[in-house]
Amino acid sequence: MVQSACSAMGREICESADVVSRIVGNRRAVAEIAGRLDVGAAPLVVLCGRGSSGHAGVFLRYLIETRLHLPVSASAPSVITAFRRPLTLRNALFIVISQSGRSPDLVAATQSARASGARTVAIVNAVPSPVANAAEFVIPIEAGPEHSVAATKTVVGSMAAGAELIAELADDMALKSALDRLPERLHRALTLDWSEISGDLASASAVFVTSRGLGLSSAREIALKLAEILRLPALSFSAAELQHGPRAALSSKTPVIVLRLMDETAATVDAVASELRARKIALHLCGGPRSTLPWLGDDDPTTDGITMLVPAYRLIERIAREWGFDPDRPPQLSKVTETF
Amino acid sequence: MVQSACSAMGREICESADVVSRIVGNRRAVAEIAGRLDVGAAPLVVLCGRGSSGHAGVFLRYLIETRLHLPVSASAPSVITAFRRPLTLRNALFIVISQSGRSPDLVAATQSARASGARTVAIVNAVPSPVANAAEFVIPIEAGPEHSVAATKTVVGSMAAGAELIAELADDMALKSALDRLPERLHRALTLDWSEISGDLASASAVFVTSRGLGLSSAREIALKLAEILRLPALSFSAAELQHGPRAALSSKTPVIVLRLMDETAATVDAVASELRARKIALHLCGGPRSTLPWLGDDDPTTDGITMLVPAYRLIERIAREWGFDPDRPPQLSKVTETF
Repeated sequence: MVQSACSAMGREICESADVVSRIVGNRRAVAEIAGRLDVGAAPLVVLCGRGSSGHAGVFLRYLIETRLHLPVSASAPSVITAFRRPLTLRNALFIVISQSGRSPDLVAATQSARASGARTVAIVNAVPSPVANAAEFVIPIEAGPEHSVAATKTVVGSMAAGAELIAELADDMALKSALDRLPERLHRALTLDWSEISGDLASASAVFVTSRGLGLSSAREIALKLAEILRLPALSFSAAELQHGPRAALSSKTPVIVLRLMDETAATVDAVASELRARKIALHLCGGPRSTLPWLGDDDPTTDGITMLVPAYRLIERIAREWGFDPDRPPQLSKVTETF
Repeated sequence: MVQSACSAMGREICESADVVSRIVGNRRAVAEIAGRLDVGAAPLVVLCGRGSSGHAGVFLRYLIETRLHLPVSASAPSVITAFRRPLTLRNALFIVISQSGRSPDLVAATQSARASGARTVAIVNAVPSPVANAAEFVIPIEAGPEHSVAATKTVVGSMAAGAELIAELADDMALKSALDRLPERLHRALTLDWSEISGDLASASAVFVTSRGLGLSSAREIALKLAEILRLPALSFSAAELQHGPRAALSSKTPVIVLRLMDETAATVDAVASELRARKIALHLCGGPRSTLPWLGDDDPTTDGITMLVPAYRLIERIAREWGFDPDRPPQLSKVTETF
């Protein structure tokens, strides 16, 4: 097993716990923002972000709908940037998530939302940035510079920062408590070795990743990293959507990574895992009594999906080096994606 | 080339034009429903559907946001069915889309939305059905019995029926006119032969399908059919999301099908096509001056994505028979998917 020195991506994954510690330490500032947002008047929440930031949005979507009982719209920036049709967003809460804060489509969408009457919050790593400037309120991700093109610590950070905001808006003490424990969990997760997946990835034609509810965002994020860093076609579906057709494409050449959270979604996820076992599809399961992957044991379903990112990121970074790929500079990608 | 007799799927694709003719003929009834919905009071629209019906929802999302300027939330039924947290949906317009009308999660989501103060509309093929019963208003898809597990004519029909509703709500004469022309376009599209894709599919490890805006739903739908009928891992992304990572997984073994509509999204889609040509990735492009696939020529971008489904469905059905697969009975799938 040839390994070059650890990459920037490898180092940045290790910083995730410290990032979340700083975010949790910023709780008072987030509480103040939450107090000024008048979320009681909001008919909905709009989440805006692309790529990994879009996945953080998927996580927040389930938190918001289950804690605030408000419907969530995942913004389609092209409606603003390409079609130039501003939406009616009076009193809506608009949350934009961006690591770099520089994607022009997110700036345009934020400006448009604010002009349409939404309260706007930017969750950004680069605080002096066009996206932060466009928003009424800013919650910093506090991750410091990120050198790898593949975002890791900023993804963990944007999920935690968003969860802090929802915890304040919902006054959810259990969520705050789970977030308090998250840095230590992220630190301990660095010891988890998911190398058992490596062999199946080497011979895979494509990889599936699945979960449900609060874990779906991590499934999507792992799939994206498998695609951008290991150049594998990687598909993510909720355990429910998988039943609606995509499972017909599963075969001996498509290993499946399953994230199982100990909450109301566990039964559906277990049913998918059972089916995979019966069909002899390569199954790599994290969580629950039949976990095949090393795991810390369940803590809280709101944060366990975030913690599961750490061993997945570490695995992908390590395999990249084994395969002779540079995890910090995936082909065809740049740090700021300038779609418009 | 060995071909068995045409499948139910093959016959049902051919009925699409007649289905849309009946839907257009039902315009007065849809106008009456539209008049009673008080959409001016709605702060948002919630779209609820899984699988192919979810794709029809993706189509309606862009129509609603660009025509009605209302934000759209794609419902996550698990919030209701698994987490049992009803959303606050006062005055929202809730549209549920279901071919069978029998999925228990859609029934629960519709009942919950109605109880929370939403106006509810069911777009269903099976009019006497639990989903239809749960909704305040029903718009029939008028497709008659569908025998193939893979939905085709009902997908085309649900997109057209939804578009009729939006055309009435927005009083969009251009859209109504495009819908009037759609049956003849769907009929002519039966002559389009997309067999040039066949060879690349036979050697593909995975297939990508992309478009943007009003074409994204058809990209997602074609990907799902490639998965469920041809058992190919098939990935769909908006042309914008493709730039955020997934394109790193493109290779000589991942052909890309691109749907290009003649609207504000054409430039982004053309940029993706140019990149694919430069990287020598197998590109199969429908639409525009550099179309590689047979096409009728552009009509209206609101309906052209629907029309493009016809040659794609026909291709997939034909290849299935060539490969010895039964297009009507994909493995592991049933007509009514009972997720909860």
